[in-house]
Amino acid sequence: MIEPILNKGERIDGLPAQNIHIIQNPDMFSYSLDAILLAHFAGIKGKGAGLTVDLGAGTGAVGLFYAPKVTGKIKLVEIQPELADMAARSIVMNGLEERVSVLKSDMKAIFDDIAPGSAETVLSNPPYFPLNETTKTNKDEHYELARHELTIDLPGLAQVANKLLKNNGKFYMVHRPERLSDIFAALSARKLMIKRIRFVYGKVDREANMVLVEAIKSGRPGGVRILPPIIAYTMANDYTAEVKEILYGASWTK
Amino acid sequence: MIEPILNKGERIDGLPAQNIHIIQNPDMFSYSLDAILLAHFAGIKGKGAGLTVDLGAGTGAVGLFYAPKVTGKIKLVEIQPELADMAARSIVMNGLEERVSVLKSDMKAIFDDIAPGSAETVLSNPPYFPLNETTKTNKDEHYELARHELTIDLPGLAQVANKLLKNNGKFYMVHRPERLSDIFAALSARKLMIKRIRFVYGKVDREANMVLVEAIKSGRPGGVRILPPIIAYTMANDYTAEVKEILYGASWTK
Repeated sequence: MIEPILNKGERIDGLPAQNIHIIQNPDMFSYSLDAILLAHFAGIKGKGAGLTVDLGAGTGAVGLFYAPKVTGKIKLVEIQPELADMAARSIVMNGLEERVSVLKSDMKAIFDDIAPGSAETVLSNPPYFPLNETTKTNKDEHYELARHELTIDLPGLAQVANKLLKNNGKFYMVHRPERLSDIFAALSARKLMIKRIRFVYGKVDREANMVLVEAIKSGRPGGVRILPPIIAYTMANDYTAEVKEILYGASWTK
Repeated sequence: MIEPILNKGERIDGLPAQNIHIIQNPDMFSYSLDAILLAHFAGIKGKGAGLTVDLGAGTGAVGLFYAPKVTGKIKLVEIQPELADMAARSIVMNGLEERVSVLKSDMKAIFDDIAPGSAETVLSNPPYFPLNETTKTNKDEHYELARHELTIDLPGLAQVANKLLKNNGKFYMVHRPERLSDIFAALSARKLMIKRIRFVYGKVDREANMVLVEAIKSGRPGGVRILPPIIAYTMANDYTAEVKEILYGASWTK
């Protein structure tokens, strides 16, 4: 690891299973289990030589955790300058600057930099919460942009993902189960056919609190597979064996 | 139990948890765990005095297992005369003829007998498999009608359920997870907003093989809850404690 220069309030968090380190600032935004599970869930096309784009990359956790799985280039798209800057320094810290780069941009404005139809894989851990009259947005601007659909909503995200992807390219997203109806509507309206879903349940007797979605561009409708549940914690509040494996073990290799 | 007259090939199966017995003919059609889980999953509106309709009732398993949960009338709609006849005799056998009745009809043709907008609750364990060029239909006509979308498909079922239900009435369905995309599309097109979903996984490390869906007529979009997983079997191939409770125990009372 190349020692980075850290700004005030920043720290380095790591994912042992992938030997990747991420510069974080908890005052602005921190990645969570969602990002790790998405990077783990996302598949690899062929030998993984194609282009991957991470839409709404934040500090780059999803794209950087995914990087060791593939050999191709990865572009991290992030609208917030402070988060994009942390992601850029994390890329150098992990020695990945030949394959991974940051594009500091609104994701709707990336097509001068990334050609439409050029991506094999699109990853996204987008803002989860819709805007409505009762929205209580987080007071901190950074968290607010990352959590609420202020700059991008689900139909907008699906449109960008569709435009980025080649035919038969894959879109991987982590989201909240309560948005499932919106997810099906937004993706199918943009020819992103949902093929695999995995629900994450906090415990075996709890409702799901996360959903991992795989969709294929211009795929045929129907044929959704619901993969085995991920149960995050045992009844004794430890991570389950599967999640420990994802955090610390070798379950990332296919 | 009132002893029924059984025709050739018929037998009586029972659900101990509800003390309900069903006349079956394995040569024609037998209910399975799907029917039991649907009847268990289906909620009760208020004191359960409203009308319930079971669409595609087969031998009546779903509606009859549900009957002890409510005090209102239940109509079982079944197109196949032999199955409708078994259901009618099962109603008498269980002493439920004052509350439960059979309507031998195509479900699209029931509105002379059941007024539109009159049902509080609609239950359905419909045919799971779409028709297409590669469909290998079961050779037996009875199984074929029950398993493939020959007489009713998902959009048609959603239309009938919508027409039957009062505003805010509930539609409960069991189906196959691979149809989830079709389910969201068909129900939302008929103002049936999916509110709760429960996936059934054969084992904790298997893909889901059943999905239980609750939708509300003219409900607001969004806000889907994914309830805790039902795991059917332990790794040692016994029913899990939860499923044993559903089959033999007292988990049916709210």
